[in-house]
Amino acid sequence: MLRRSVTVLGATGSVGEQTLALIADLRARGEADITVEALTADTNWKRLAELAVTHGARFAACADRQAAERLREALAGHDIEVGIGDEGVCEAARREAGWVMAAIVGIAGLPPLLAAAKRGADVAFANKECLVSAGEVVLAAMRAGGGKLLPVDSEHNAIFQVLDRPERVRRLVLTASGGPFRTRSLESLAAVTPAEACAHPNWTMGAKISVDSATMMNKGLELIEAAFLFPVPKERIEVLVHPQSVIHSMVDYVDGSTLAQLGAPDMTIPIASALAWPDRVPTRAAPLDLAEVGTMTFERPDEARFPALRLARQALDAGGLYPAVLNAANEVAVAAFLKGHLPFLDIARVTEHCLAHECGTDPSASLDAVTAADARARRTAQARITAVAA
Amino acid sequence: MLRRSVTVLGATGSVGEQTLALIADLRARGEADITVEALTADTNWKRLAELAVTHGARFAACADRQAAERLREALAGHDIEVGIGDEGVCEAARREAGWVMAAIVGIAGLPPLLAAAKRGADVAFANKECLVSAGEVVLAAMRAGGGKLLPVDSEHNAIFQVLDRPERVRRLVLTASGGPFRTRSLESLAAVTPAEACAHPNWTMGAKISVDSATMMNKGLELIEAAFLFPVPKERIEVLVHPQSVIHSMVDYVDGSTLAQLGAPDMTIPIASALAWPDRVPTRAAPLDLAEVGTMTFERPDEARFPALRLARQALDAGGLYPAVLNAANEVAVAAFLKGHLPFLDIARVTEHCLAHECGTDPSASLDAVTAADARARRTAQARITAVAA
Repeated sequence: MLRRSVTVLGATGSVGEQTLALIADLRARGEADITVEALTADTNWKRLAELAVTHGARFAACADRQAAERLREALAGHDIEVGIGDEGVCEAARREAGWVMAAIVGIAGLPPLLAAAKRGADVAFANKECLVSAGEVVLAAMRAGGGKLLPVDSEHNAIFQVLDRPERVRRLVLTASGGPFRTRSLESLAAVTPAEACAHPNWTMGAKISVDSATMMNKGLELIEAAFLFPVPKERIEVLVHPQSVIHSMVDYVDGSTLAQLGAPDMTIPIASALAWPDRVPTRAAPLDLAEVGTMTFERPDEARFPALRLARQALDAGGLYPAVLNAANEVAVAAFLKGHLPFLDIARVTEHCLAHECGTDPSASLDAVTAADARARRTAQARITAVAA
Repeated sequence: MLRRSVTVLGATGSVGEQTLALIADLRARGEADITVEALTADTNWKRLAELAVTHGARFAACADRQAAERLREALAGHDIEVGIGDEGVCEAARREAGWVMAAIVGIAGLPPLLAAAKRGADVAFANKECLVSAGEVVLAAMRAGGGKLLPVDSEHNAIFQVLDRPERVRRLVLTASGGPFRTRSLESLAAVTPAEACAHPNWTMGAKISVDSATMMNKGLELIEAAFLFPVPKERIEVLVHPQSVIHSMVDYVDGSTLAQLGAPDMTIPIASALAWPDRVPTRAAPLDLAEVGTMTFERPDEARFPALRLARQALDAGGLYPAVLNAANEVAVAAFLKGHLPFLDIARVTEHCLAHECGTDPSASLDAVTAADARARRTAQARITAVAA
């Protein structure tokens, strides 16, 4: 039987909720003996209090200090310690749990992630931004702690499941749905609305990641993530468009074998893989029925219509702080697009502008350098957006 | 670097030749340090002599005694021992080589295969008939010797590559091209000619296996083979039609993950996998380019038009000597079809007749029992074919 002591950073987000639902299901079916050590949230103290009580957590923390006070009141009478603010969240990460789900969105998740990594926890990674912006810092912390890095993104989890011989890899192939605009002409993309961009064909996701899927920057960020996660030269990582998203990614070996992981578009599957690794546990995810799927198709990505892929490759090749700039500039540009302040095709243009103007000053891989580059890129992006709008 | 001492049983057949070509290529590229201990053939002494000299074999044997004498003459002056007849082939199998390719076609391959298995060699299995007809006998010999059983059939090799947790398997999915008659109506199959049946869409193969592909008995035999090879309950093994034959087979786990091996239709790939396992070695097999492939499709098999699948499942469920009868009866029926003595749809009817009339007399899993059942089934099949033709 699977035994784990678990902490979930970002418990009230989509991945956090699905992780806890899986844990509850495994416990109910007698498939796992899992204790929940600590749970954290940003502002949603109400849901966090419910989750902490339901799962018997020993510690709960809100990053928002006001929310943390409300959380303390809500948990009065329960034997659950409460952590307050960013320091409370880091304390949650430092508490003894062998397995930590790092599911806080954005660069805010970095300090607790590093705290968990340094003390040697196995860390399930559902935070794209931390690895993209601060890959070297994260990897150094993981190496120092000695825990296992378990990718949760469906593409990286797929590769993780079939990467038996990294030194014998010919190519890692990240599959991409191609997003809602896969078949649209470049001209027609100019007038795309936020509502159109958020209608993803295969996965139900938040607005930011849906836009990233529409620009294919999502795949660009995953390309950078893959380069940090897997001991394979970055030029051997490729993107293949596969609109049905049934094959989640592949590893192509030197002997001619390609190994792939396939499955329903259900995050429970990679979460369960990361939780149980190297074992497996039953989930309620729908089994894959390929006769039902019927057809899978594949095509090469078009970097002319989706320049985000080219920009990500450029940032990856340049290394240092370029990936952090790419991520921050894109985040600001996407936010402006979602507010109607920036045309769709200008998301990539703003990001390219920032990459061209904001880099090369500090090649060191320190947390401070990353934070500073992130802040600079956001200012530059904002200034550029204002200029475009004017 | 890969180090192996290798014996190839059936060196002049297609798999044997490809195994030796791969070994030569790996040596030439400095990728492996492989010594060839022994090579065997049935009658083709001329080619065997060439191979033995080229690969520096220490021992060579022909099952045909006259051919063995010619082999001895051809190898005069070379420091290569010569084995004569079936006993010579078994001697080849007994000689010290850590890895043995069992690529003799048919039940004739069983005694040398058992000899290699019992002395503890890792055995690469390219002989379908032995495992189907004498699965229990083969497995008992492998267990006694303690060597590893390495499947070479592309479907079983695919499963072998991704079967990390047999106890967590929901289904093994054997893919099938569906053969040249996948889309033909049952009525139109009655008049099929041997030439039509031998035109396989994806693989270049011999006549017998091409007909087995056309009837889908090939997949039926593989179903039985899989049940012996993998520690998974037989009712969890399924067949899925996938005309492009790009996915060679799959393992569906309880967590919702499906792992698959994909590749070009080139036997070098599974041979290399079996040779290098658990490592991998580079081959000259064409890398898989899915953008080039473009489309993969999947459909459920139709047991009404392809009753061989149902018969194989029936033989597997009945166990004992039924698989041996299935294999022998089918072999005789296919031979009669290829000679124009039996209509295509009667191949399955003859086999079904034999299953109904020739079983249940001896459930023991001895070599003698298997040999006797095989002989009985061949007589019954022949008698039935004569009756049908009359």
